[in-house]
Amino acid sequence: MATKTSIVFLTMINLTLFITCSATELPQLRDVHRPCKKFTVYLHETRYNGSNLENATSAIVGNPVWGNKTNFATTFGNIFAMDNPLTAVNNSHAPPVGRAQGFYVYDNNKGLGTWHAFSIMLNTTTYKGSLTLAGENPIMMKTRDIPVIGGTQDFFMHRGIATFETAYVDGFISYGIKITVKLYECWRLLE
Amino acid sequence: MATKTSIVFLTMINLTLFITCSATELPQLRDVHRPCKKFTVYLHETRYNGSNLENATSAIVGNPVWGNKTNFATTFGNIFAMDNPLTAVNNSHAPPVGRAQGFYVYDNNKGLGTWHAFSIMLNTTTYKGSLTLAGENPIMMKTRDIPVIGGTQDFFMHRGIATFETAYVDGFISYGIKITVKLYECWRLLE
Amino acid sequence: MATKTSIVFLTMINLTLFITCSATELPQLRDVHRPCKKFTVYLHETRYNGSNLENATSAIVGNPVWGNKTNFATTFGNIFAMDNPLTAVNNSHAPPVGRAQGFYVYDNNKGLGTWHAFSIMLNTTTYKGSLTLAGENPIMMKTRDIPVIGGTQDFFMHRGIATFETAYVDGFISYGIKITVKLYECWRLLE
Repeated sequence: MATKTSIVFLTMINLTLFITCSATELPQLRDVHRPCKKFTVYLHETRYNGSNLENATSAIVGNPVWGNKTNFATTFGNIFAMDNPLTAVNNSHAPPVGRAQGFYVYDNNKGLGTWHAFSIMLNTTTYKGSLTLAGENPIMMKTRDIPVIGGTQDFFMHRGIATFETAYVDGFISYGIKITVKLYECWRLLE
Repeated sequence: MATKTSIVFLTMINLTLFITCSATELPQLRDVHRPCKKFTVYLHETRYNGSNLENATSAIVGNPVWGNKTNFATTFGNIFAMDNPLTAVNNSHAPPVGRAQGFYVYDNNKGLGTWHAFSIMLNTTTYKGSLTLAGENPIMMKTRDIPVIGGTQDFFMHRGIATFETAYVDGFISYGIKITVKLYECWRLLE
Repeated sequence: MATKTSIVFLTMINLTLFITCSATELPQLRDVHRPCKKFTVYLHETRYNGSNLENATSAIVGNPVWGNKTNFATTFGNIFAMDNPLTAVNNSHAPPVGRAQGFYVYDNNKGLGTWHAFSIMLNTTTYKGSLTLAGENPIMMKTRDIPVIGGTQDFFMHRGIATFETAYVDGFISYGIKITVKLYECWRLLE
């Protein structure tokens, strides 16, 4: 009798599992406690201001009619293209571990904010590959979360969050951002 | 005898489940029936036309050589930066529940279409956080689906679809879009 | 006795399964062996060079102060809007199967690279729908992987990788790219 009851009970659990874990209907709400991968890099940008072409790493490439391409202020609508070095420590002279390549748009017409869309290209002994980031960067907040929406090579299909924190500012021309990347979805392609 | 059969049967189910639900090989085809989160907002945009700087919420910041930055027509190649209020009802004077910040590019050289890339920034009692949207918006279709590719805070790691439907048009200067956001992948970060 | 042991054993398996496959805690590391969908298209682009307006499919719409909108060179910071036909074979005169609409930015100030952000819009008997792609395209590499970060209709919620390989180059004005799309996460909306 106890055996029969156990079996019925087990069958119920099995059915529950079968519904929960069927091949195609995965739960839509996912809980996570910690990243599957995590690392920190420092981004260093020097904006072109009309006279620093030699060491500029970004430049205005789009602007509204009331802006121009040599001001370096934070005018609404300005688009910057960027090719910024990334370092492992908060020092722009440290050896680069990769680059942050893409662009951003000033898109807050009452305050300060940018829409950043770029790739983190890493080439280290630990990680080789790219991550695509895209989202609003509300500059005036101490820390800002930007979605990480895809990746390649060691970051194949990865997703997560990048937390931006201003590391240093030198006028409106140069600045550094501490970027902490936390990946919560990690994939491996086994060929 | 019946017991033995049951146990063998259960074992078979268990093995099936074990294969189906192993820790790392999830099914690649996922079926869903309904969103895990859903909401509707109305976006209100007024384009800068050369004389409405006070209440414009968007402006041309890129254009081809045959365009310019004060026309407000739909020239192929025009880039608009935008910082548009979002409301819960179809009324641009209603209290905002958030903002739609980013940009779009006219990218259909025979018809009308834009590539929209922006964030929905919500700040309500129900939801606080951002969603990143990116994709083609074929304006001439009654409803248009744009991928929602990531998010932050209450929308941490979320993905889904945003359906655009024109709510009103006032010349080429002002328009409203009803945006229905349906999220099919919802995550929670438990710290 | 054998029965009891079996039941205990089954219970252990069940508990393992329950932990592995609980409704909300899916494994964060996913292994895959092959795409759930795969196809190849050829993109054909002809850049506007000041005198080919009739057959140009792309144009410079943003540029740094040292660039302009009729050069067709690969200046850092140039933004191109594009509306390019896609074909099933490597022949720009073949009937189009869709379009590649969006933009790209030259974002490598020491070499050649672009940040591509666009949609593949397919309209064939096999597939109808769009895919959003965004990421760095290191042009000088023989093959380049770009993340596919979302989709609509037949590509609802899909993600994967698009591999770019230059198919032909005709000066700096025209070129073709073989794009192999491999989708590793496929969804179906059952209404």
